[in-house]
Amino acid sequence: MTDAPTTRRTVRAARGTELTAKSWQTEAPLRMLMNNLDPEVAERPDDLIVYGGTGKAARNWEAFDAIVRTLEGLESDETLLVQSGKPVGVFRTHEWAPRVLIANSNLVGDWATWPEFRRLEQLGLTMYGQMTAGSWIYIGTQGILQGTYETFGAIARARFGGSLAGTLTLTGGCGGMGGAQPLAVTMNEGVVLIVDVDETRLARRVEHGYLDELAVDLDDAVARVLAAKGERRPLSVGVVGNAATVFSELLARGVAIDIVTDQTSAHDPLSYLPEGVTVDEWHELAASDAEDFTRRARASMAKQVEAMVGFQDAGAEVFDYGNSIRREAELGGYQRAFAFPGFVPAYIRPLFAEGKGPFRWAALSGDPADIAATDRAILELFPDDEHLRRWITKAGEKVHFEGLPARICWLGYKERHLAGLRFNEMVASGELSAPVVIGRDHLDSGSVASPYRETEAMADGSDAIADWPLLNALLNTASGATWVSIHHGGGVGIGRSIHAGQVIVADGTPLAAEKIERVLVNDPGTGVMRHVDAGYERAVEVAHERGLRIPMQEG
Amino acid sequence: MTDAPTTRRTVRAARGTELTAKSWQTEAPLRMLMNNLDPEVAERPDDLIVYGGTGKAARNWEAFDAIVRTLEGLESDETLLVQSGKPVGVFRTHEWAPRVLIANSNLVGDWATWPEFRRLEQLGLTMYGQMTAGSWIYIGTQGILQGTYETFGAIARARFGGSLAGTLTLTGGCGGMGGAQPLAVTMNEGVVLIVDVDETRLARRVEHGYLDELAVDLDDAVARVLAAKGERRPLSVGVVGNAATVFSELLARGVAIDIVTDQTSAHDPLSYLPEGVTVDEWHELAASDAEDFTRRARASMAKQVEAMVGFQDAGAEVFDYGNSIRREAELGGYQRAFAFPGFVPAYIRPLFAEGKGPFRWAALSGDPADIAATDRAILELFPDDEHLRRWITKAGEKVHFEGLPARICWLGYKERHLAGLRFNEMVASGELSAPVVIGRDHLDSGSVASPYRETEAMADGSDAIADWPLLNALLNTASGATWVSIHHGGGVGIGRSIHAGQVIVADGTPLAAEKIERVLVNDPGTGVMRHVDAGYERAVEVAHERGLRIPMQEG
Ligand SMILES: NC(=O)c1ccc[n+]([C@@H]2O[C@H](COP(=O)([O-])OP(=O)(O)OC[C@H]3O[C@@H](n4cnc5c(N)ncnc54)[C@H](O)[C@@H]3O)[C@@H](O)[C@H]2O)c1
Ligand SMILES: NC(=O)c1ccc[n+]([C@@H]2O[C@H](COP(=O)([O-])OP(=O)(O)OC[C@H]3O[C@@H](n4cnc5c(N)ncnc54)[C@H](O)[C@@H]3O)[C@@H](O)[C@H]2O)c1
Repeated sequence: MTDAPTTRRTVRAARGTELTAKSWQTEAPLRMLMNNLDPEVAERPDDLIVYGGTGKAARNWEAFDAIVRTLEGLESDETLLVQSGKPVGVFRTHEWAPRVLIANSNLVGDWATWPEFRRLEQLGLTMYGQMTAGSWIYIGTQGILQGTYETFGAIARARFGGSLAGTLTLTGGCGGMGGAQPLAVTMNEGVVLIVDVDETRLARRVEHGYLDELAVDLDDAVARVLAAKGERRPLSVGVVGNAATVFSELLARGVAIDIVTDQTSAHDPLSYLPEGVTVDEWHELAASDAEDFTRRARASMAKQVEAMVGFQDAGAEVFDYGNSIRREAELGGYQRAFAFPGFVPAYIRPLFAEGKGPFRWAALSGDPADIAATDRAILELFPDDEHLRRWITKAGEKVHFEGLPARICWLGYKERHLAGLRFNEMVASGELSAPVVIGRDHLDSGSVASPYRETEAMADGSDAIADWPLLNALLNTASGATWVSIHHGGGVGIGRSIHAGQVIVADGTPLAAEKIERVLVNDPGTGVMRHVDAGYERAVEVAHERGLRIPMQEG
Repeated sequence: MTDAPTTRRTVRAARGTELTAKSWQTEAPLRMLMNNLDPEVAERPDDLIVYGGTGKAARNWEAFDAIVRTLEGLESDETLLVQSGKPVGVFRTHEWAPRVLIANSNLVGDWATWPEFRRLEQLGLTMYGQMTAGSWIYIGTQGILQGTYETFGAIARARFGGSLAGTLTLTGGCGGMGGAQPLAVTMNEGVVLIVDVDETRLARRVEHGYLDELAVDLDDAVARVLAAKGERRPLSVGVVGNAATVFSELLARGVAIDIVTDQTSAHDPLSYLPEGVTVDEWHELAASDAEDFTRRARASMAKQVEAMVGFQDAGAEVFDYGNSIRREAELGGYQRAFAFPGFVPAYIRPLFAEGKGPFRWAALSGDPADIAATDRAILELFPDDEHLRRWITKAGEKVHFEGLPARICWLGYKERHLAGLRFNEMVASGELSAPVVIGRDHLDSGSVASPYRETEAMADGSDAIADWPLLNALLNTASGATWVSIHHGGGVGIGRSIHAGQVIVADGTPLAAEKIERVLVNDPGTGVMRHVDAGYERAVEVAHERGLRIPMQEG
């Protein structure tokens, strides 16, 4: 389903305080939808693709136009339903109800495979929503920067005495999400070599300050990173190449690499370039014979993962960074693919047990000063959190905004609503020049079932139980979120995950404050609840200390 | 996970107007949960099994107790979360929010298989919720009676001049749902022979007036039904036997059968008894070697379906009655299993296109007079609907209440809320002695994705798209329903369906009236919307005539 070129256009969210829609409750999703497609934000805006392989914001341009038109006229007691990027109905609800309800890419289990998904996509019946693409709360590469920074920070603490100084990381994939890796490593004082087949992707990260430099070839790259490593000087270097080839080559050369991961779009075999195929041939070849392309992509992934396991055998810290590359390599015939862990059980689960996850907000004004003001507010609200202070400070210095100015920081249960309520006050008082939206990634503490990533190796074996994200979505809908979404297949691919999102608008009104209090307590609360149920002691403590009611532990 | 016998007990919903919980909004789910487990209602109450193979109302007795305890104390701005029959959290929401949110049996796609489901069930992590078992709005066999009556009525109109008089129907399975078949056929003036392996199931239907008589053996049964058919005298006869054996035998004998279907619990191969296994050996054998039992059950289903196709080849009207037996027979090695259609594309889809589906309500008073009063109200509200009048009149005469008195009738978009609002007025005025709950089956116009049943052979090929039921659940949550549920695997089995339910309490208050208006317009509205999107002309007309907003058709 490619649109006629005439319907393509450059999209950018409105700035300032003049409304196109009838209220900020509908102006907000309108601006955030458009912001997702801003060329500064989206990876392939002409195709409505935001990030993560083929993660889209709307089914097609006709659907985009209809969403815009409907949001512009939507009343404060009406709700728009969006089915895989297409607006399908408008219903009368009430003031506490979400203004938009979204379900993207969901398939009945027996049909939840890439080939079936693609067949239905070809028929025009669905689209791939990834996580925050189809739910209109992607904020550019910063969105993942904090998570990546946290992850590398955890590795630094666990294995390298608190800093990555003097270590070398090897990774692949410098796209929308993967592009955060070089900056996250250098923010942790390390050196990193990142491989991508597509030079434009690497160049874009250099332009945006996420990547320091581009090497001429692999020899040049290795020389530069080893020099920096020797001097304990933070540096990120990009090199054009296929990760399958380059990873194997570096292993064979015996280059002293300390940490290895990958963030190519491995979750979708058509978005991973097999060895022997050029970037120019890519899309036509994938489209013309998806099955053969899949086979070849998996064979290359098998080779790449084999090299990763080789690095692990040689003593490196190796982890899967949430793109399902282990499972794809296994399907490609490599037996030891699951020899290294996913990053969630390895580093993130303890945060999830406290309801901590990628809390984020964006300034609808478009004014960076609004984000600077919220940054200060966060530091005032949590004066004792040293880790948070370091992040907010560094982010303020290093993060280049893409699209509407935005910020991310990980906050937990009974923390997020404090920030939300403060922001709402700041909107009311005029400290902020316009309302802000407050949301999060679907990758969060209580909003995902994804056995190769967020729920890998749960203590009670409940990895594949998908009731939890659905309860999360229902509860956010019942708590006053402004838009709520349920997606399938984000991150790790079709058949492998179910997850939910929520966004709430702080427009400065007392009603918004009430809703913010409910949503930003309840949403991370489902994360604590889910980890209590799975038997995590820290979650039980948090529930107890912070007053979360768990019926099976009462009475 | 069997409970210690000591925790088992006989459960029955309270009657009358004295509240155990703090309001009718929470008393209602409490009574309906208990009503689902009333021995008059549930098929195996000791195991918390309500109907449909292993469809349960709560995970175990401990979870049941915790749900009851929590509902008793729940405030009007709190919401209880239930994960596969276990209460997992209580959150502060608001007055318009549902009091209970339920997600049952949901699994991530790649793990959505019976063996994986059972493994997780063994670990105590999930339960099978079927459709209305885990969502607390099962009302006994009447629940399916109307649908079955409608289905046989449609066949009568399509093939037999408007009545089944002088026709003979053969079917299998006389359980919670299947037990409606004999009465539905005789209400359409036909003759029916029903086969069940378990004599107690047949005896129960005789006791409750759903089945006329039990034959001594197959010869006796055939003699009785042929005599009745010859005399064009409505009659239902039950015979003990395995459907695989009996169907083949009757085909071989050349008995003049006009209509063939089946409602054994084929959706779950462990709930279908293979040939050569006795009822007494059943559960132990299924538990001890699930894989081998599955193989044998599928082989028997293949044999039964082969006989069904044989009847079709001989000119009979043959259809799958929503238990996935065709797919199981195919897995059992029989190639032509899909030679006959499912009942939805064959008879029900035109109703779904108008948002028509199994609307139902129950009198929380326990007083049959309340249902009689609502029956009268329905006839007054829709004086011109001859079909509805016939059903309500017959139901009033023939339906034996199981548990709380209840009624079902199929109503469409912009009809259901009229009934709901009238009932609410009747509660307010004292015409009814206590509030009523208003709900429906998950098998409804906009609430299911199930490619072997409700969404089989959709006009646009969207059978497996599961966004629709999720949007339905989110919208009901956003519209003021009292409890909302999302289930996986009901009807047709794990991996094959996703569906949603809603129940709303008419407690006579103005707030309830507002909620009823939203929910009972929006809920069937999603059905019309779904069928508009799939291209059904009648749905487009209904949307146009009755004022449903479809964004892609505007602007
Ligand atoms: N860990 C997390 O928190 C997280 C979050 C979101 C997404 N993800 C996953 O990370 C992956 C990357 O996401 P993204 O948004 O960056 O995707 P993207 O599509 O924007 O970028 C993928 C990049 O990989 C490159 N690539 C493809 N094949 C390659 C190969 N063989 N060798 C080298 N480079 C190759 C592409 O050129 C592209 O630049 C996805 O699988 C996504 O689902 C992880
Ligand atoms: N068409 C619909 O609208 C609809 C609605 C709900 C459920 N269903 C499906 O219908 C089926 C029956 O539901 P139910 O609630 O009656 O289930 P149930 O478990 O209460 O009853 C099933 C009956 O089948 C009998 N049976 C099992 N194997 C048999 C065999 N080989 N031969 C003869 N009898 C056999 C059992 O003894 C039992 O009485 C299920 O698959 C259910 O999912 C259909």
